[in-house]
Amino acid sequence: MTYCVGLLLNEGMVLLSDTRTNAGLDNIATYRKMFVFEEPGERIVTILTAGSLSITQTTMARLAEAIEDPEATAETSILLAPTMLRVAEMIGDTLSAVRQTVDDKLAAMRQGASASLIVAGQRKGGTMRMFLVYPEGNFIEATEDTPFLQIGEHKYGKPILDRIVRPETSLEDGQKAVLLSMDSTLRSNLSVGMPLDLAVIRADECRMGATRRIEPGDADFLAMSQAWSQALRDSFTTIEI
Amino acid sequence: MTYCVGLLLNEGMVLLSDTRTNAGLDNIATYRKMFVFEEPGERIVTILTAGSLSITQTTMARLAEAIEDPEATAETSILLAPTMLRVAEMIGDTLSAVRQTVDDKLAAMRQGASASLIVAGQRKGGTMRMFLVYPEGNFIEATEDTPFLQIGEHKYGKPILDRIVRPETSLEDGQKAVLLSMDSTLRSNLSVGMPLDLAVIRADECRMGATRRIEPGDADFLAMSQAWSQALRDSFTTIEI
Repeated sequence: MTYCVGLLLNEGMVLLSDTRTNAGLDNIATYRKMFVFEEPGERIVTILTAGSLSITQTTMARLAEAIEDPEATAETSILLAPTMLRVAEMIGDTLSAVRQTVDDKLAAMRQGASASLIVAGQRKGGTMRMFLVYPEGNFIEATEDTPFLQIGEHKYGKPILDRIVRPETSLEDGQKAVLLSMDSTLRSNLSVGMPLDLAVIRADECRMGATRRIEPGDADFLAMSQAWSQALRDSFTTIEI
Repeated sequence: MTYCVGLLLNEGMVLLSDTRTNAGLDNIATYRKMFVFEEPGERIVTILTAGSLSITQTTMARLAEAIEDPEATAETSILLAPTMLRVAEMIGDTLSAVRQTVDDKLAAMRQGASASLIVAGQRKGGTMRMFLVYPEGNFIEATEDTPFLQIGEHKYGKPILDRIVRPETSLEDGQKAVLLSMDSTLRSNLSVGMPLDLAVIRADECRMGATRRIEPGDADFLAMSQAWSQALRDSFTTIEI
């Protein structure tokens, strides 16, 4: 399982992903689930992945190959596509094609596989946009009304986002919100695990901003987690029924 | 969908259920999901239900009929069974039989139905016990280490329980915890809805204690919900990352 979350705020975008991948409870590994494609100052596209690793790795590899191809065009490379909408379509098409191929192979074993993605990016002159791409390749977009998207194990960490995240939320508060959302998820689902990848993309910079890998036992994260637990318990005692 | 939760505390048991039942988004109704069978002072058995209404209603009706049967025996009536463990087994058997019958009927339509239950009770001279009965009729029991059980849409409301509920939690705090857990669920899942049924069974009283139906717009619940939102936001601002 996985938990990835992206915020689309006025000041920029905040992205957080875990790294745990498991094939059964006795086969656990760490894989990066955040991928960055950028031409700094011109265009940035960040992709968060959830689902079957065989699908997400192949999808990322195909997108990277298409970018590096010397004959890449606006039709084939997500770093040349004219709009972020077109980028989301291209990524969706790639995901859908890979998923279909893997699914066909698995059908013989009466199994299935799927994956979903969060795509966040901006090109110079355009606006920041964030999409949730479904396994079938179709997608939805974050808006003013719903300024966050989640993939994977999303329920445990949603209440805090519902209460805190608005488009006018600061980047600092946004980082705090996604980390607390992840903290609730880590506590409740063993298949979501550290280390975490946190990234901030400031509006109109069209380049990756601050990034941070949070390792297990990270003192700051632990302190935040404990402070939040304590604050929740303190709040609890002040509430009257 | 449904959300029901039960706490097994040293001082007693706290039970909370919603009442929303839906067959599609355009067919929503209110049905009680908390059922009490008692011989006050001697024995109390409370059942919370989640899942297909056709299964849970028939299961409850069969259990009630067996109790009212003038020829009821310790083998047929949950109010005569010698232990709470036996009560859980009898309820599990009834649920399993009803589910099987309904499932067989639905198989022709390539559909399925299931239901799960929380069973909480105590008989004079015995200890309080709480079980989660699965659709197949097997069950697990709440313990010191895991003093709460949930059925239905359980993820949104679990983080607050994980943080607060211990066997030594007071009944008052227990009620607060389940109401806040429900509040998070109501916010995030439309198919869980008010009114709510809240019940407290004090240890060794073997009778239903305080019960409360919380209607939509209940001023106390609304105040608690708003105070909690505010407390969470205040806590959020005090946390540093």
